[in-house]
Amino acid sequence: MPEKLPSRSEDFSEWYNQLVLRAELADYAPVRGCMVVRPYGWALWENIQQALDRRFKETGHVNAAFPLFIPMSFLEKEKEHVEGFSPELAVVTHGGGEPLSEPLVVRPTSETIIGYMYAKWIQSYRDLPVLINQWGNVVRWELRTRLFLRTLEFYWQEGHTAHATEQEAIEETLRMLDVYADFAINDAAVPVIKGKKTESEKFAGAVMSTTIEAMMQDTRALQSGTSHFLGQNFARAFEIRFLDQNNQLQYVWTTSWGLSTRFIGAIIMTHGDDQGLVLPPKLAPIQVVIVPIYKNDAERSAVLETAQRLFHELQAAGLRVKLDGREEMTPGNKFYEWELRGVPVRLEIGPKDVQSGSVTLARRDRPGREGKSTVSQQGLPETIRALMNDIHRSLLERATAFREAHIFDPKDYAEFQEVVQRGWAFSWWCGRKECEAKIKEDTKATSRCIPFEQPGGSGRCIVCGEKADQKVYFARAY
Amino acid sequence: MPEKLPSRSEDFSEWYNQLVLRAELADYAPVRGCMVVRPYGWALWENIQQALDRRFKETGHVNAAFPLFIPMSFLEKEKEHVEGFSPELAVVTHGGGEPLSEPLVVRPTSETIIGYMYAKWIQSYRDLPVLINQWGNVVRWELRTRLFLRTLEFYWQEGHTAHATEQEAIEETLRMLDVYADFAINDAAVPVIKGKKTESEKFAGAVMSTTIEAMMQDTRALQSGTSHFLGQNFARAFEIRFLDQNNQLQYVWTTSWGLSTRFIGAIIMTHGDDQGLVLPPKLAPIQVVIVPIYKNDAERSAVLETAQRLFHELQAAGLRVKLDGREEMTPGNKFYEWELRGVPVRLEIGPKDVQSGSVTLARRDRPGREGKSTVSQQGLPETIRALMNDIHRSLLERATAFREAHIFDPKDYAEFQEVVQRGWAFSWWCGRKECEAKIKEDTKATSRCIPFEQPGGSGRCIVCGEKADQKVYFARAY
Repeated sequence: MPEKLPSRSEDFSEWYNQLVLRAELADYAPVRGCMVVRPYGWALWENIQQALDRRFKETGHVNAAFPLFIPMSFLEKEKEHVEGFSPELAVVTHGGGEPLSEPLVVRPTSETIIGYMYAKWIQSYRDLPVLINQWGNVVRWELRTRLFLRTLEFYWQEGHTAHATEQEAIEETLRMLDVYADFAINDAAVPVIKGKKTESEKFAGAVMSTTIEAMMQDTRALQSGTSHFLGQNFARAFEIRFLDQNNQLQYVWTTSWGLSTRFIGAIIMTHGDDQGLVLPPKLAPIQVVIVPIYKNDAERSAVLETAQRLFHELQAAGLRVKLDGREEMTPGNKFYEWELRGVPVRLEIGPKDVQSGSVTLARRDRPGREGKSTVSQQGLPETIRALMNDIHRSLLERATAFREAHIFDPKDYAEFQEVVQRGWAFSWWCGRKECEAKIKEDTKATSRCIPFEQPGGSGRCIVCGEKADQKVYFARAY
Repeated sequence: MPEKLPSRSEDFSEWYNQLVLRAELADYAPVRGCMVVRPYGWALWENIQQALDRRFKETGHVNAAFPLFIPMSFLEKEKEHVEGFSPELAVVTHGGGEPLSEPLVVRPTSETIIGYMYAKWIQSYRDLPVLINQWGNVVRWELRTRLFLRTLEFYWQEGHTAHATEQEAIEETLRMLDVYADFAINDAAVPVIKGKKTESEKFAGAVMSTTIEAMMQDTRALQSGTSHFLGQNFARAFEIRFLDQNNQLQYVWTTSWGLSTRFIGAIIMTHGDDQGLVLPPKLAPIQVVIVPIYKNDAERSAVLETAQRLFHELQAAGLRVKLDGREEMTPGNKFYEWELRGVPVRLEIGPKDVQSGSVTLARRDRPGREGKSTVSQQGLPETIRALMNDIHRSLLERATAFREAHIFDPKDYAEFQEVVQRGWAFSWWCGRKECEAKIKEDTKATSRCIPFEQPGGSGRCIVCGEKADQKVYFARAY
């Protein structure tokens, strides 16, 4: 059997790195900071894509594709945007063997080039709203990279919408944050907190950034999706205007929102255990793995026959199922491998099961005997669906309980500094950048969000003691 | 009503360019040679993707994602490959504000970087075959570009497989060409001819390139998908080796195959008419558009009620249907717009239809009265499915008949030079590069393929008169 993973408590970071490689989710590319998403990881991403894309289409959005290359001058049109992104750009200077007259940036995000096209396409209020999403790759020249969490090139979707009124654009911003939260909670079993970013943490060029924040098992926060209200900043930079119903020329109001392959990191670090991945059933590339167990040829043929019949039955019921018929491998080694790869349900079938019309189900989220049950082959798809629903519920409950147990309300700044080393602090903040910066300097914790759900009333800033009317989550973050 | 399209006979090229823009399939990007694929074009591409991806998965392939950037030195490892691609490269020389020690190429195709990873992943015969596909974007620095047909950046899939034996790799190459042909014929109604490329036309680095070639309505050929047998060229360049069952270290045999957004150009130029696009029903983003017709408020409410009921009924039956309820637009203008955009079936419903329980169906492939029929609202989904099947059949028949009428068997080189100006020549060829080059120089026609289907026997080379044992299609091409 291969070497064990390091345990999470021993070295969380190394547990993560090895798990990503050994579960064959991703691999290091020969270009610094880039990753190869391997078939198992990409299948997970495809399920994430489908879960989101369905929601985008239900809320009236359509997909399109905009160019990878952006003229450098475009980025410079929005002052905060270029300041935010210029340290992270990859630049194409040569094409077809010739130096280019204007360097091209490999898109780090597409507000600018999409803004340019919207200015061409939008003339009248009848053209609004424009609700477009793009699935694609972007590049940000990061110095410290980690598979999925921070890579030079990553995969994401970026929605870009244009609206006639400020209110409509703000509603869209919040609607898409709700879509992300709904996906995270109901498909990925990742509990998230919705809120606003502070001024210093917002997207370069946004008026307001909103975020969903999740707590990983090392208590660090992971920003899992963001939705930005861009006001008229990009509309002014790119002259995106429309004639309103009174024939007046107006700037549009825009939004943008994105969720990336980083979310795979959130899934790994929310649910994984010392045996490996624990994938949420709705997104798992393989939901059920069937492992046949036999000792001799006679048993083999009877067991395999039943295994194949159940395989087809589960597949026909729409479950993503795999029959692991490898001859050269023991059942024990198969168990080990599929546990490492996080398959939610393992179905074991042996000669006794064939005779009695039963199978054994083992749920990945509860290792060992406790997670095993013997059930009838009759109505197996329904039994497994119910089990998967229960697994989803358990994962979500466990992660939520973990988060709640690691959110603190420190009584003073001394305690604050201590708790953010082992959890999140939920503290009053006066709103001044200085206090936020002091926290970061003293503790490495940053403001994660000003949650929409507030206790009400007012308090004293955890740093300076001045009056504060909002509570903020502070945490060390990925 | 907007200005008419130029007719195909008047100016085929301008008909194409204007149609792509006016049907809102794509638009020119602000970067030379790049395109924006607009939502309607991207929805068509998504349907193409699904139709292919289903076939890839049925033939045992999985998807993954490899990096956009390739170290320049990788391309240089395969001599023919770098010679073929180096004039077309976009090169990143700066990242994060610093010059790079080794320039990075934006992938023009991914044999090299995938080869590098396969060398890491493949150790034993048990790891073979590796059957991976990637959906993504690539960049080739083309000088003369046209939307969909030839753009700097384009979207495609590239399959890359590795096998233990030569025979298996050749079988894979041909299997995937069959998958492309099956898709083209049965989903896109684009008849294609399967064959081998000549030495001068093959992929840079391949041992054998195979292709599907389609005839456009201006009789030019369009290479619509290619599948390459790469022998051990990339295996040697990247040291992709495995221990075989006798414990001997062997190089793998690889293939690659791709189909791109160029195929959208094939659909447009195979089926389009002077009114606009004619989309094949299986791939059309909107298969049925419902246009309600009424003169006053009383009629309006009755008509809309029935229209909505039918809309939901068709949608529930799995059809991609749109109800065009725009108030500010006449039915005539709606007809014009949906004809331009190539929707296969238009459903008209007026007050009389409401009373009599009927609707009028208009098929896009037969404009005017001839294509209209009045049918019962009862069983409408089945009626429309049958109609769509008939449309598919008609499109395929029409395109096949057009192609057959424009393939010539010229008796001598003088006639050859004439016929390739108005069709394809199917002629004996001795196999010498000199004769192929002379044809290109004299006529601009190139060898399109050596079809697998050969008449047998032998003949005289159409150029030099020497003995020839194969017939080849020659044509001007996109």
